[in-house]
Amino acid sequence: MKETEVIRLKEDVHLNNPIMFVGLPGVGHVGKLVVEHLIENLEGEKLIEIYSPHFPPQVLVNKDNTIRLANNEIYTCNINGQDILILAGDHQSSTNQGHYELGDLYLDLAEDFGVSRVYTLGGFPTGEFNYNEGVIGAVNNIEFVKELEEHGVEFRENEPGNGIVGASGLLLGLCKFRNIGAACLMGLTSGYIVDPKSAQSIMRVIDKILGIEIDEEALEERAKEMEKVVEKIKTMKEQQDSKQLTQKDEDINYII
Amino acid sequence: MKETEVIRLKEDVHLNNPIMFVGLPGVGHVGKLVVEHLIENLEGEKLIEIYSPHFPPQVLVNKDNTIRLANNEIYTCNINGQDILILAGDHQSSTNQGHYELGDLYLDLAEDFGVSRVYTLGGFPTGEFNYNEGVIGAVNNIEFVKELEEHGVEFRENEPGNGIVGASGLLLGLCKFRNIGAACLMGLTSGYIVDPKSAQSIMRVIDKILGIEIDEEALEERAKEMEKVVEKIKTMKEQQDSKQLTQKDEDINYII
Amino acid sequence: MKETEVIRLKEDVHLNNPIMFVGLPGVGHVGKLVVEHLIENLEGEKLIEIYSPHFPPQVLVNKDNTIRLANNEIYTCNINGQDILILAGDHQSSTNQGHYELGDLYLDLAEDFGVSRVYTLGGFPTGEFNYNEGVIGAVNNIEFVKELEEHGVEFRENEPGNGIVGASGLLLGLCKFRNIGAACLMGLTSGYIVDPKSAQSIMRVIDKILGIEIDEEALEERAKEMEKVVEKIKTMKEQQDSKQLTQKDEDINYII
Amino acid sequence: MKETEVIRLKEDVHLNNPIMFVGLPGVGHVGKLVVEHLIENLEGEKLIEIYSPHFPPQVLVNKDNTIRLANNEIYTCNINGQDILILAGDHQSSTNQGHYELGDLYLDLAEDFGVSRVYTLGGFPTGEFNYNEGVIGAVNNIEFVKELEEHGVEFRENEPGNGIVGASGLLLGLCKFRNIGAACLMGLTSGYIVDPKSAQSIMRVIDKILGIEIDEEALEERAKEMEKVVEKIKTMKEQQDSKQLTQKDEDINYII
Repeated sequence: MKETEVIRLKEDVHLNNPIMFVGLPGVGHVGKLVVEHLIENLEGEKLIEIYSPHFPPQVLVNKDNTIRLANNEIYTCNINGQDILILAGDHQSSTNQGHYELGDLYLDLAEDFGVSRVYTLGGFPTGEFNYNEGVIGAVNNIEFVKELEEHGVEFRENEPGNGIVGASGLLLGLCKFRNIGAACLMGLTSGYIVDPKSAQSIMRVIDKILGIEIDEEALEERAKEMEKVVEKIKTMKEQQDSKQLTQKDEDINYII
Repeated sequence: MKETEVIRLKEDVHLNNPIMFVGLPGVGHVGKLVVEHLIENLEGEKLIEIYSPHFPPQVLVNKDNTIRLANNEIYTCNINGQDILILAGDHQSSTNQGHYELGDLYLDLAEDFGVSRVYTLGGFPTGEFNYNEGVIGAVNNIEFVKELEEHGVEFRENEPGNGIVGASGLLLGLCKFRNIGAACLMGLTSGYIVDPKSAQSIMRVIDKILGIEIDEEALEERAKEMEKVVEKIKTMKEQQDSKQLTQKDEDINYII
Repeated sequence: MKETEVIRLKEDVHLNNPIMFVGLPGVGHVGKLVVEHLIENLEGEKLIEIYSPHFPPQVLVNKDNTIRLANNEIYTCNINGQDILILAGDHQSSTNQGHYELGDLYLDLAEDFGVSRVYTLGGFPTGEFNYNEGVIGAVNNIEFVKELEEHGVEFRENEPGNGIVGASGLLLGLCKFRNIGAACLMGLTSGYIVDPKSAQSIMRVIDKILGIEIDEEALEERAKEMEKVVEKIKTMKEQQDSKQLTQKDEDINYII
Repeated sequence: MKETEVIRLKEDVHLNNPIMFVGLPGVGHVGKLVVEHLIENLEGEKLIEIYSPHFPPQVLVNKDNTIRLANNEIYTCNINGQDILILAGDHQSSTNQGHYELGDLYLDLAEDFGVSRVYTLGGFPTGEFNYNEGVIGAVNNIEFVKELEEHGVEFRENEPGNGIVGASGLLLGLCKFRNIGAACLMGLTSGYIVDPKSAQSIMRVIDKILGIEIDEEALEERAKEMEKVVEKIKTMKEQQDSKQLTQKDEDINYII
């Protein structure tokens, strides 16, 4: 496989002014969690599989020990008459050049389906273990700010300060060349762990965008499990810190 | 050499429904050890040499100080009427893109020979120095599970959890596109050293697949040598640990 | 985007024997600071945007939370009848091959505009936090040395000893093939921080080259802010050093 | 510059059965030192300059602050009627693929000149600071072993055990495909520093190959300077070791 390959599982798909959600692996796997939840809850139908030498040479192993080659996939579903496309996947490109090539490929496919708006979903790393609820936004058209603020998205001047790296950012930039409106929704997250709680924050924004209320049970459960993990890490960290403190005291005693 | 080059050492080779074993360098060099043992014991005949700019720019030095350029090679042999192809080599691709390109090249060659089944061979790292005998399997067709279980292969739900990276995994995925049945056989191994003992476990599965009993003496000898190395490492580690313990005791005495 | 793309914002631009300043991110971001200051003060007009898969897959976030795709840009302005081109940008190429490809692209554009002289601007890392004012030069034609010395540029035998890596150096080399005279002006800088003070040193040389006096207020202000940061770092370092010294004394006391 | 460029400084060069020496940067810069010494002492004439996007984007700065783009170069000279080609350069390829591409380019040029034998020159790292005189050989044709042994080259069974990585090795492998005899001569060297003494060992082998005695004064001088550096490093190391020993004693005293 020298070139990226697009496999269409269904021909002659006609969608009506669809909006597209993109959730690829990244900070806290927040975007990936959201789109997987969407696909499951909205009973998304897989339309396209994308294989590429820009992905790692890897197969994933299913529960039954069969394998599948790492890829990206496009799903569709319909909510209250609104057609939706969802881009999900195992990996982002492993090279810069692949990022640009795949980015354009995704948007070629999106344009074919007549996509009118793209939402890329990701995590915004705070570096803190204490959970801060919130979804930060960036847009490729100033007009979307007010609309998204009404849906609960927060806009912070000049943030993220280092820009947005990877597919979530790049697609916003590439959409601009095609006059496709696009916004990046970033759930606040520590940046250290997979974060279903942050995914829930984004889900609530999507609920408002779509005017529905998607069941969050599955995410809720994963969030609770994750919270236990975080608690353990915190306790360990505190014990370690207090230990170091004691040792330091002893050191000081000793030196004096 | 801007492109991969295939050198055929013999023209007009006709094989009857061959099965293919793939053993390239990887975890514990388990796959490589197995296919080298197969080639030697089954008197494999070299058919093809593959050179590629995706391999490191390296020559290997023979015993007599002549050199040969790093490559991959395809051998053939016949056991009880069963034609066999063996893919062996010095390196896997050093780039992701090369992995995909070479993977397809190998399968183009396999298809030309009419290969009906591919077994990729590798190691499954346990991270433990205590030897656990066993061969873990993954397949690209659920039908192979039962058959391989009968040959002593173990299937663990969802394992390996991180998928299979490199040629062993990728070939399973690429075979699927060509409707070639493929299985990956992974010998349990510490992951720290070259492991002929793990190669022996795989050999026993291959014996059952082929319905023969291949002499294991050479592997047995290498395994014994390796065991001595492992014993030394373990002893050193224990001494180190006990030393650290003693020091810690002293530290504690001191602090109290 | 598989290939680098050049977007012209204005057609039929005719310049008269322009000179070109190049200031891309690098050591102390000195070159970048200088050309941003030039563009602002000389009211540069943007002519060209360059997008490339050789840049990182990144968007920058503006103050108002709109984004723009990482790129390089060419501006023009006219000072006392002298046409000027300025190459500015967010990134240098992230691959060696991209450096060569983009380097030639920049010079193709420069030649189209009839550029007669190129000045690449950068930082010369001293590794010392104490500020040493000065601009070091390297040229692709021995005749420029005397001229630049008169403008306050210092030439040190054989320096920089490790050559000049990146666009600043490469463009000098590529200009030589096209018989375009080129010089690299490197402001002395610690190499640890963004350095507007070093940018000011280069500005003074450019003042002499252009026979004008460009307002330095903006750089001056940033330099003052940076000085405070440096002072803080220095104080912290001194405290740390003296602390270590005390501890060492205690260690010595103890051992004796 | 998207592709490698070959600039011929002289047309219609006809050589008679030339032998080629290759000395690119590598372990201890031994090969590079040898060919630079050859070019200077045999008054080599530069025939070809090779520029490539596979080299780093770097210019080197001359004594007079003019620059030159990093490249590889081919020189020629004639000793007692024997035509010689010398490949020298600032860098090896910075990518694997570039190594293969440039390797074939060098041999295309060599074949055009009718090269009958290639000697690649490099260092053989011992990891020890104590100097061990000697030149280790590897060949692409068993017939050269005896001939080179007579010239003082040592052949050690199976060494170098990890093969030969980089241009020195690769060219031996690629020469084999073209039926050009080739040998790699590796001077023993610590592997930690630039080593003119090791270069001298290789020079003595070349003297015998060419049946002449090339003046070694320049190398001798550099070797003496280097020896002083090594002595200093050794002294520092010994002091450090003895210090650590003392400290350890004290630690022990203390703990008891």
